Amino acid sequence: MASAVVWRRGAAWLRSCRGKVLQRGGSRQPPGVPRARGCGGSREVVPTCERYAVRRLPFARLADGDVAFFERLLPGRVVTGEEEVKPFNVDWLKSVRGCSQLVLKPQTTAEVSQVLRYCHEKNLAVNPQGGNTGLVGGSVPVFDEIILSTALMNQIISFDRVSGILVCQAGCVLERLGEYLEEQGFIMPLDLGAKGSCHIGGNVATNAGGLRLLRYGSLRGTVLGLEVVLADGSALDCLTSLRKDNTGYDLKQLFIGSEGTLGVITAVSILCPQKPKALNVAFLGCQSFAKVLETFTTCRAMLGEILSAYEFMDGKCMELVQTHLKLSSPVADSPFYVLIETSGSNSTHDEEKLNNFLERAMASGLVTDGTVATDDKKIKALWSLRERITEALTHEGYVYKYDISLPVGKLYDLVTDMRARLGQSAKNVVGYGHLGDGNLHLNITAESYSHSLLDAIEPFVYEWTARCSGSISAEHGLGFKKRQFIQYSKPREAVLLMQQFKAMLDPKGILNPYKTLPSAPERSTC
Amino acid sequence: MASAVVWRRGAAWLRSCRGKVLQRGGSRQPPGVPRARGCGGSREVVPTCERYAVRRLPFARLADGDVAFFERLLPGRVVTGEEEVKPFNVDWLKSVRGCSQLVLKPQTTAEVSQVLRYCHEKNLAVNPQGGNTGLVGGSVPVFDEIILSTALMNQIISFDRVSGILVCQAGCVLERLGEYLEEQGFIMPLDLGAKGSCHIGGNVATNAGGLRLLRYGSLRGTVLGLEVVLADGSALDCLTSLRKDNTGYDLKQLFIGSEGTLGVITAVSILCPQKPKALNVAFLGCQSFAKVLETFTTCRAMLGEILSAYEFMDGKCMELVQTHLKLSSPVADSPFYVLIETSGSNSTHDEEKLNNFLERAMASGLVTDGTVATDDKKIKALWSLRERITEALTHEGYVYKYDISLPVGKLYDLVTDMRARLGQSAKNVVGYGHLGDGNLHLNITAESYSHSLLDAIEPFVYEWTARCSGSISAEHGLGFKKRQFIQYSKPREAVLLMQQFKAMLDPKGILNPYKTLPSAPERSTC
Repeated sequence: MASAVVWRRGAAWLRSCRGKVLQRGGSRQPPGVPRARGCGGSREVVPTCERYAVRRLPFARLADGDVAFFERLLPGRVVTGEEEVKPFNVDWLKSVRGCSQLVLKPQTTAEVSQVLRYCHEKNLAVNPQGGNTGLVGGSVPVFDEIILSTALMNQIISFDRVSGILVCQAGCVLERLGEYLEEQGFIMPLDLGAKGSCHIGGNVATNAGGLRLLRYGSLRGTVLGLEVVLADGSALDCLTSLRKDNTGYDLKQLFIGSEGTLGVITAVSILCPQKPKALNVAFLGCQSFAKVLETFTTCRAMLGEILSAYEFMDGKCMELVQTHLKLSSPVADSPFYVLIETSGSNSTHDEEKLNNFLERAMASGLVTDGTVATDDKKIKALWSLRERITEALTHEGYVYKYDISLPVGKLYDLVTDMRARLGQSAKNVVGYGHLGDGNLHLNITAESYSHSLLDAIEPFVYEWTARCSGSISAEHGLGFKKRQFIQYSKPREAVLLMQQFKAMLDPKGILNPYKTLPSAPERSTC
Repeated sequence: MASAVVWRRGAAWLRSCRGKVLQRGGSRQPPGVPRARGCGGSREVVPTCERYAVRRLPFARLADGDVAFFERLLPGRVVTGEEEVKPFNVDWLKSVRGCSQLVLKPQTTAEVSQVLRYCHEKNLAVNPQGGNTGLVGGSVPVFDEIILSTALMNQIISFDRVSGILVCQAGCVLERLGEYLEEQGFIMPLDLGAKGSCHIGGNVATNAGGLRLLRYGSLRGTVLGLEVVLADGSALDCLTSLRKDNTGYDLKQLFIGSEGTLGVITAVSILCPQKPKALNVAFLGCQSFAKVLETFTTCRAMLGEILSAYEFMDGKCMELVQTHLKLSSPVADSPFYVLIETSGSNSTHDEEKLNNFLERAMASGLVTDGTVATDDKKIKALWSLRERITEALTHEGYVYKYDISLPVGKLYDLVTDMRARLGQSAKNVVGYGHLGDGNLHLNITAESYSHSLLDAIEPFVYEWTARCSGSISAEHGLGFKKRQFIQYSKPREAVLLMQQFKAMLDPKGILNPYKTLPSAPERSTC
C-alpha cells in the first residue's frame, strides 16, 4: 500500500540493510553485467525496504559457506561486491532498489536446478532476473534475495523452418532472437520497446504484451512449451513443440505471467509467424480522442487481416519525445496521434487497402494530417516516436506509471479525469498505448517523488479502473509495486486460490518473495 | 488400459450396475434431452464398467432423499427414468456407456453452486455434460455419477460490437452462437463438425481445436474470461472481458482443457473475429502426401494472412463419404485431397492471391485437379466432404479413433505404418485432419470391437507418437479412454503436479471421476 516512509535522497548504498555485506571479488567483472542504462538523472535510489512498509520474511542470511558453494558450482559466474551487484539491484526506472549481495549466472538448466535445490534446503530467497526491464519492481530484490540471472542462458536450441517453432534458452535477448529469425524469413510474435535488453524468459514470466499482440495474440497462445525449474530444484519439462496438445492440464500456463514466483523458466518453445513481405506504417494526427476511436473502427474494417498495430499517443507525449530525445514529428501539431501498421504478403494489395482507408479517413475528417512509410528506416523512425515515450518521460523527473486495461471507448477518460484531479500538483499527465488492445499507459510526472501526490493518484486510479471493470495491470504485471492492489481486478476467491497455488509449488516461499501476491502491510524491518 | 472384458452384444441396460435403480418420472420428457443421434447401427452399448478394468470409487450412492432435494431445487428440470437418462449415459460414438440414474439441468450459476455444494457434502460424484459430442468418453459417466447438464444454461449475456467480445452461458450451442454473431458481423473463433450440438462450455472444458485454429489460434488465446463453480460449490468469477489482464496467475487457463475435472464452467467470455467479407474454398487433388506438404508450404507463403484452413484427407476417406453419405467428389480420384480456405477483407485481392497460388500449384504439378467455391452453398458442400468423415466412418462398424499431434512432415507416416502393421485384420486405416496444425486423425475400422485388434494398435500408436515427440491427444482430450496413456506425452513430474492440482481443487474427487488423470488399472467392480 502507499507507504508512510518519506522519499530520502542519497541514502548510502546498503547502509540501511542489515546482514553481513560481502565485499569479495570486487575487481572481477564477469560477462553479462547489464549496461548502465535506465532513466535519466543520477540520483541515488532509496532502498525499497526503506520506502515501503514491508517486512523481511524469515529467510536465511547469506553466509560465506553459501558463496563458496556457488563459486564451486558456477566458477567465474558468481558476482559479488557492492558495485558489481548494484546494476542488478536497481530497476530500469531507478524506482526500487534491493540489497542483494550475490548474483548467480547459471548456463544450464541443471545448474539452475542445483542452485534452487541448495537455496530451498538452506531457506535462501531467490530473485530470478532476466533483462531487468520490468516496470513494476518485479525483477529486482526487495531485501537480500540472491539474484539468479538468466544472462548466460542465451542459446538457441532449435528452429524449424517448416513449422516456425523456435526453442531457446530463457536468457536470449528478444532483439537477438528477432534478428536470427529474420534471416530465416520469420519474426517473433511479440515486440516491445525494451527488446534490446529484455530476455524471452522474462517476457514469458511476465506475459509481456507489446506491439504485435493485436495481430499475433498473447503469449498464452504462441508459447507452445516451457521448461521450468521449481522451487525445490526439480525440473519440469513441458518443452513441447506442438501447436496442439490436450494431454492433461496445461501446466505451462501457470508459469506464464507468474513473475518468477512459481518457478524459474529456463527454456521456451514459441510459434513464430512468417516475416511479412510487405510492411507499411501510417502516422496520423487526430483532432479528438473520439476521432481516434472512429479511425480505429474504420481501419479495422478496411484493413482487416493486414492490420498489425494500432497505437495512440497524446500531444503531450509528442512534445516530450521532441524535447528530450530530439525526435521530429512528421505531422502537424495535433491533440492526438495514431500509428497504424500493416503487415501482409502482397505489397500491392496492402498499399491499395491502406490508401483506400487513408482516403476515407482524410475525406471524412477523421484525420487531419499524416504520413506513410514503407521503407525500413522511415518505419523505424515512426515507431521510435511511439516506442521511446517511456524513455522521454524519465527525463521529466519522477514518473508514476499505470498500465490499465479498459473498454476502448473509455480509454482516455481516465487521463482527462486524472488531469483535472491533479491540477498543478503534477507536471504532466499523459496517455498513450495499445489502443487496439484496450490498453492505456497512463503516466504522471513530477519533479521528484511526493507522497501526497501518490495519495492523490492512488487508490483513485484503481477505483476508477475497477468501476469500468478494467484491469489495473494490462501487461506490466503486479511485481512489487502493484501487488497490494490486486483486489481491484480480482475477487477474493481468486486471490485465495492463487495463494494456494503459491503454497503448493513453493511451500517455503523462496521464489521472488514480496512479488505478485499481496501480503498484509507492515512496517519495514530491513 | 485395454480391457480383458470381451465385447458383448445386447447386455441388458443397467443390469450390470449395482445400486438402487430409480424408475420415477418415466413419462416426463423435460426440455433439452439430446436428439437421438450418433453413429450408425442400433447395437446396444456395453457398460463401460464391464468393458474396462476400472473400480468404482467409494462415492455415496444416490438415495431417494437426494432426488427429492434436487427436485425441490430444480423443479421440472430433474431427469430420472432409465429411458429418459439413456441418451445422457451413452456417448455420441456409442463406444462407452455409464449407468447414471439422474440428470440435473440447472439454469443459473447459483443453481450449479447449490448442486455441487450438496454433492460435495454428500460425497456424490458428478459428471458435467455439455452437448455430449466428445470422442474420448469424457462426457458420459463411467458408473452412476450424477449428470450435470448445461443444456438449459443457454443465454447470451452480452456482446460488444466494438471489441467483438461475447459473454454467454456455458450451455450455448456453438452453431447458435455463430448464427447470432453473423447477424452482428462477427464469427466465433472456433468451428468444428459437432457445432450443431456441442456447447461452448464443453468446447472450453475440452480446449476444442477444430477448423479455424490455424487462423484464430487456440481457445487459450481467445477465451478472455471464465466463470467456474468449484467442487465445493464456490463460484470463481474470472469472467473478465479484457484482451489483456496481468493481475496475478491466469486461473482460467487451468480450467480450459481440464475436461470438467477441476470445476464446472458456467459462463464464458470470448473474443470473436470480424466476419470475413470474402470467403473462398479450394478443394484439390494431390498424387502423394509429399505433394500435400509442398502444397501447404507454397500456399502458406502465397496466401499468407488470408489462409484460414488447410485440411487434408486421404482417398479412402473420400470413398467413405461417397459410399455412406452419398456425397460426390468434385475432383478426379486422387490418393489425397486438400481443402484450403481463405478469409479476407477484400474479395478481389483474395481471389487474385488464390488464383496466383492455384496457377503455381497446377503448373508445378503439386495438384492434379481442383475446384474453387466462393458462394455459401458450394463452400458448405466442399466443407461437408471433410467435416462428415467422422460420421461416414461410423457406418463402417467399430471405429478406433486416434487424434495425434506430430511434426507435419511425419504426419502420414503413422497411417502408412499402421496400415502395414494391421494388414487384413482392419477393415480400413484412414488419415485426415488439420494438416496446418500438425494434427492427424487416424481412424481404424473393423466390423466389431476386437480386443486383439486393439492390442495390435495400442500401445504401438502411442509409442510411435512418443518417438516423434508428438502428442497422443491433439484436440480431443484424454477423457476416459486415453487417460492411462498420458505418460506417452507428459513426463512423470508433470502428471504428479496435475494430480496435486486435482487434489487441491477437488479433494474428494467428485468432479468427473475416472477422467483425464490416470489411475492404477484394477478389475471392474461395478
